[in-house]
Amino acid sequence: MQNKIVVVKLTGKIFDEKELIGKYVELFEKLTNKYHLVVVTGGGKKAREYIEIARNLGVSSNYWLDLIGIMASRLNAYLLISKLYPKAYYKPVENLEELHNAVLSNKIVFVGGLIPGQSTAAVAVEVSEALSVNKLIMVSAVDHVYERDPMKYANAKKYTEIEASKLKKIIEQQILPGEYALIDVKALDLAIRSKITIYITYYREPENILKILNGENPGTIIYPR
Amino acid sequence: MQNKIVVVKLTGKIFDEKELIGKYVELFEKLTNKYHLVVVTGGGKKAREYIEIARNLGVSSNYWLDLIGIMASRLNAYLLISKLYPKAYYKPVENLEELHNAVLSNKIVFVGGLIPGQSTAAVAVEVSEALSVNKLIMVSAVDHVYERDPMKYANAKKYTEIEASKLKKIIEQQILPGEYALIDVKALDLAIRSKITIYITYYREPENILKILNGENPGTIIYPR
Amino acid sequence: MQNKIVVVKLTGKIFDEKELIGKYVELFEKLTNKYHLVVVTGGGKKAREYIEIARNLGVSSNYWLDLIGIMASRLNAYLLISKLYPKAYYKPVENLEELHNAVLSNKIVFVGGLIPGQSTAAVAVEVSEALSVNKLIMVSAVDHVYERDPMKYANAKKYTEIEASKLKKIIEQQILPGEYALIDVKALDLAIRSKITIYITYYREPENILKILNGENPGTIIYPR
Amino acid sequence: MQNKIVVVKLTGKIFDEKELIGKYVELFEKLTNKYHLVVVTGGGKKAREYIEIARNLGVSSNYWLDLIGIMASRLNAYLLISKLYPKAYYKPVENLEELHNAVLSNKIVFVGGLIPGQSTAAVAVEVSEALSVNKLIMVSAVDHVYERDPMKYANAKKYTEIEASKLKKIIEQQILPGEYALIDVKALDLAIRSKITIYITYYREPENILKILNGENPGTIIYPR
Amino acid sequence: MQNKIVVVKLTGKIFDEKELIGKYVELFEKLTNKYHLVVVTGGGKKAREYIEIARNLGVSSNYWLDLIGIMASRLNAYLLISKLYPKAYYKPVENLEELHNAVLSNKIVFVGGLIPGQSTAAVAVEVSEALSVNKLIMVSAVDHVYERDPMKYANAKKYTEIEASKLKKIIEQQILPGEYALIDVKALDLAIRSKITIYITYYREPENILKILNGENPGTIIYPR
Amino acid sequence: MQNKIVVVKLTGKIFDEKELIGKYVELFEKLTNKYHLVVVTGGGKKAREYIEIARNLGVSSNYWLDLIGIMASRLNAYLLISKLYPKAYYKPVENLEELHNAVLSNKIVFVGGLIPGQSTAAVAVEVSEALSVNKLIMVSAVDHVYERDPMKYANAKKYTEIEASKLKKIIEQQILPGEYALIDVKALDLAIRSKITIYITYYREPENILKILNGENPGTIIYPR
Repeated sequence: MQNKIVVVKLTGKIFDEKELIGKYVELFEKLTNKYHLVVVTGGGKKAREYIEIARNLGVSSNYWLDLIGIMASRLNAYLLISKLYPKAYYKPVENLEELHNAVLSNKIVFVGGLIPGQSTAAVAVEVSEALSVNKLIMVSAVDHVYERDPMKYANAKKYTEIEASKLKKIIEQQILPGEYALIDVKALDLAIRSKITIYITYYREPENILKILNGENPGTIIYPR
Repeated sequence: MQNKIVVVKLTGKIFDEKELIGKYVELFEKLTNKYHLVVVTGGGKKAREYIEIARNLGVSSNYWLDLIGIMASRLNAYLLISKLYPKAYYKPVENLEELHNAVLSNKIVFVGGLIPGQSTAAVAVEVSEALSVNKLIMVSAVDHVYERDPMKYANAKKYTEIEASKLKKIIEQQILPGEYALIDVKALDLAIRSKITIYITYYREPENILKILNGENPGTIIYPR
Repeated sequence: MQNKIVVVKLTGKIFDEKELIGKYVELFEKLTNKYHLVVVTGGGKKAREYIEIARNLGVSSNYWLDLIGIMASRLNAYLLISKLYPKAYYKPVENLEELHNAVLSNKIVFVGGLIPGQSTAAVAVEVSEALSVNKLIMVSAVDHVYERDPMKYANAKKYTEIEASKLKKIIEQQILPGEYALIDVKALDLAIRSKITIYITYYREPENILKILNGENPGTIIYPR
Repeated sequence: MQNKIVVVKLTGKIFDEKELIGKYVELFEKLTNKYHLVVVTGGGKKAREYIEIARNLGVSSNYWLDLIGIMASRLNAYLLISKLYPKAYYKPVENLEELHNAVLSNKIVFVGGLIPGQSTAAVAVEVSEALSVNKLIMVSAVDHVYERDPMKYANAKKYTEIEASKLKKIIEQQILPGEYALIDVKALDLAIRSKITIYITYYREPENILKILNGENPGTIIYPR
Repeated sequence: MQNKIVVVKLTGKIFDEKELIGKYVELFEKLTNKYHLVVVTGGGKKAREYIEIARNLGVSSNYWLDLIGIMASRLNAYLLISKLYPKAYYKPVENLEELHNAVLSNKIVFVGGLIPGQSTAAVAVEVSEALSVNKLIMVSAVDHVYERDPMKYANAKKYTEIEASKLKKIIEQQILPGEYALIDVKALDLAIRSKITIYITYYREPENILKILNGENPGTIIYPR
Repeated sequence: MQNKIVVVKLTGKIFDEKELIGKYVELFEKLTNKYHLVVVTGGGKKAREYIEIARNLGVSSNYWLDLIGIMASRLNAYLLISKLYPKAYYKPVENLEELHNAVLSNKIVFVGGLIPGQSTAAVAVEVSEALSVNKLIMVSAVDHVYERDPMKYANAKKYTEIEASKLKKIIEQQILPGEYALIDVKALDLAIRSKITIYITYYREPENILKILNGENPGTIIYPR
């Protein structure tokens, strides 16, 4: 009997804080008895450092800069795999075919970036779609979806739920600065077309994942319509 | 000495008309002496028929429906390969790594769809980006970019050139109906970020490709800004 | 505990009739609880259409024409996979090594053509041999083995059982016209050498598969001697 | 400018006689300047020894016995590669897709067995078909095609040329004992359908390959009709 | 519930004696119910014969000579697989990634050589390290570790246990002649760094494997310090 | 006509100093016209940081820690590839088979670590052996081979040439502390067996590579005996 698949996307920020990684590892170890986890890892600070070195060398191609970011996100995945093996599948998945194969193992499956020109948020929605999963937990650098950058606007409106199409419009109007961006239009479009509900939760609160699995809403729910 | 890479995207419609396929094959055979061709093939009518059969079976997952469309676009690629081999690389490329490898052969390289959730138009821009090519020829079902559907509005404004960001807005406002859509936002975003100029040309006029290579503009130029 | 492997070969004709595909899908869904199904899919009308397009382009190489037919048979496999996933292995198997790997998943495994110059009937026998299976169900365009083409000779002798070596001679004497041919010498030779009994059954009667599994003989049994 | 492809099939017997291997290596080194060689290697005595060990262990599956023979034929290929590298492609080709890829290297390409249930003679014809080559040199244990086994019948009729369809009939009538069989029906069928002329030559006379390339006929020509 | 992984290394000598192979096969069939076996196969006499042929051809590169030995060790693995399938994974593992994948099957996994310049003894330790196994059974041509070659020195000191670092020194001082060498420095270094205890046992006594699994010491224990 | 292969091993330290990377890139771009470069990249500071994170998570397996280091060394390779593409092969080579394939492209080929339990110095010797190259340039953190750590012993004896077997003894006697170690016994053993001369040169002086190619000796020559 296979456990139910749960897709979790981890912001790369987690890999910048050693204690946090440990907490997520513990959580995954606990959850793996009840759920079949598929975890998408972002890049974080080290990814940006590598990209910065390439830029300094004179690399301007977005393809190659993205590829370096993807490789760094996979290295983050390896960090978690190295600790969770043999409960984790032995390598980060590199494309959707490999995803289907890895999932057959019933192990925790890790996925980094997949393809240049695509955010790891979009990867996470794509992974959910490929596996016919309709709930996606996005562990993010922000605790909620806001109408504006909460760092700049103290009274920015905070959403506990929002429709994907509305969030799309907010993003398209570029009200949100790049650094704040927690999700992109591509990811939202895929979520809408495949009716995937997204749960945004704050990365410093790993236990929120449990809450979401128990039906609570500690952050923002993005409805696929 | 390697020839200059030229990326061409073929609408699937070409594969619905036997004489047209033959003309494009002839053209590619001629061009291959001067240019290193990379050709992205769309799906066309047969792709839609296969997808329709799957839908009739009760398949609702966009992932699987897209995948079937991708496989059909690769079968289209095989048609051209079977005729052009050994001037063509022996199989359709299935991801960007394989693209880099295939290009080393100096043969005509064919690419079908790559990944569910992505149009073959976006594939063509991605391929251009991966190969650092800044001009992309899109052989389309329409002869130009119009402000509205020319089938419905006889006096729809016709563009001989347009900025990608402007076209993006037209698309986002959904003025263009789905069937007419010749390009999507994702493709335009990639084109802008990587400064790829797109040449739209009518699929019933294969010789337009030569004109574009000679600096003429028989259709619409989409500037990456 | 693994279920017993059952190899079924489906004539491509099934894919030309939408309701039939649905019935086979239903049947496979039901059988998968008791049997480990390995299903070989033929090409059918669409395969011939693609091959025809290639021929029109001037392709005369049997290698490439066969390869296009193989790709079309794999697209047929994808139709069934898209409906049966996750009960089906996620892709059509492309060679015998991949077959062994796919079978480890305990999912329904689909196989299209494998290699130019070989019928899907021969593929089905090869698959049976590779998996040490000694019974093969061939869902065919004809309901029985006949001594001559039953379409032309109303009183053609109908076999309910026949020895493979005898059928081989009938085929070698070319009494059977190409279109009628339900099996070829290569397939029979493999069946004989590996003692695989073949059950011919009519494609319009999916329930015959159940009958055969229950020990009945609704068509023709070809004994491997 | 690529050299013309020449396909040569080597009987496994060559690998049983050390000096002979050396002579063929020398020949290939010389020929590689003018021709693009693709060489199919048979199994020979060691292959039979390995198969014998498996049989002694109780293995009766033809699939596995053939697979062991294939692996041994690839080891023979490695012997030649180890000596000819870097003039040879770095590994034996394992399927027809890999063949197309290997041929792009312009190196001498070696192929062992490909798939259980198929002789290396059939492999050689298949390789010729895949590469659109219409002449195939088969270096054989016998110097000519005979009507009966020349070992047993001193006055057996010797052919300097024969039609494939006629040879097929001789083989089907089982006049030729297994050990003598230099080619099988499957290989002849493929040769006929793809119009491949086969040149039989004696394995103890490596220089015959040169003669055949120069238009002479030191053995038997099998015409594809 | 997965069985505990046990890594066994078989000297190639086993493959030179037909009855012995059979006994090991029987043993593995019995053990597979209680243990998850991973078996590393050496090369033996046939490997040396192949290498000898290559040398006679004039091959001096250690890379290629080793590669031929590796291929022969994989053929040995195929002998065991052909008998044990489907209880055995369907092919010899060729690198450590494939090892992790094969182990997911819960079948008996066979490994031949992995990479030129590395003994199969070192492979066995590497496999143990990759799978976090801390006991390794080495079925060897000698029954114990001796201080000198017991063939030459009748009263050579025999160890029932020894520290890896001490054995390393004995080997480095070249007291042991090449033919006698049962383990190399590289393997011992890996064993020490990953705390893997090695059990040496005589290849003519297959039942010793059972003894070791039951906590006895029929040969020499090499402690990883 | 192919250029002569030159194998260069880069200490990971280069990737810790941005200007240095740029200088090596420039040098490689210049050299690629005359030489066919194969470059092995070490890990450096970032590799150690990743390994440190894993250790903090509680990972003690050397296999996994090494694997993370290997992945980091490949990321370093990607930095150089992203700048040198299309003069560089499009990805770091992951095993020796892939190396042979990559070398066929005539591009600059990059290799990171290959397998846990092996230094990138040993990788570089192995790569040289696989390609039959008998000179290897090792760009190192130290400018020469010393008898003791020059940091601690101001008057440590400096070698401008040394025999591999002598250096091996120095290393085995552990006179050299870990941090100083520029090469290991495994690498020296491989160099000796395959007669590969190693040129040690200081990483802060990229132009030394040119000197070595011109027959000078700006560091230490290690002779393979």
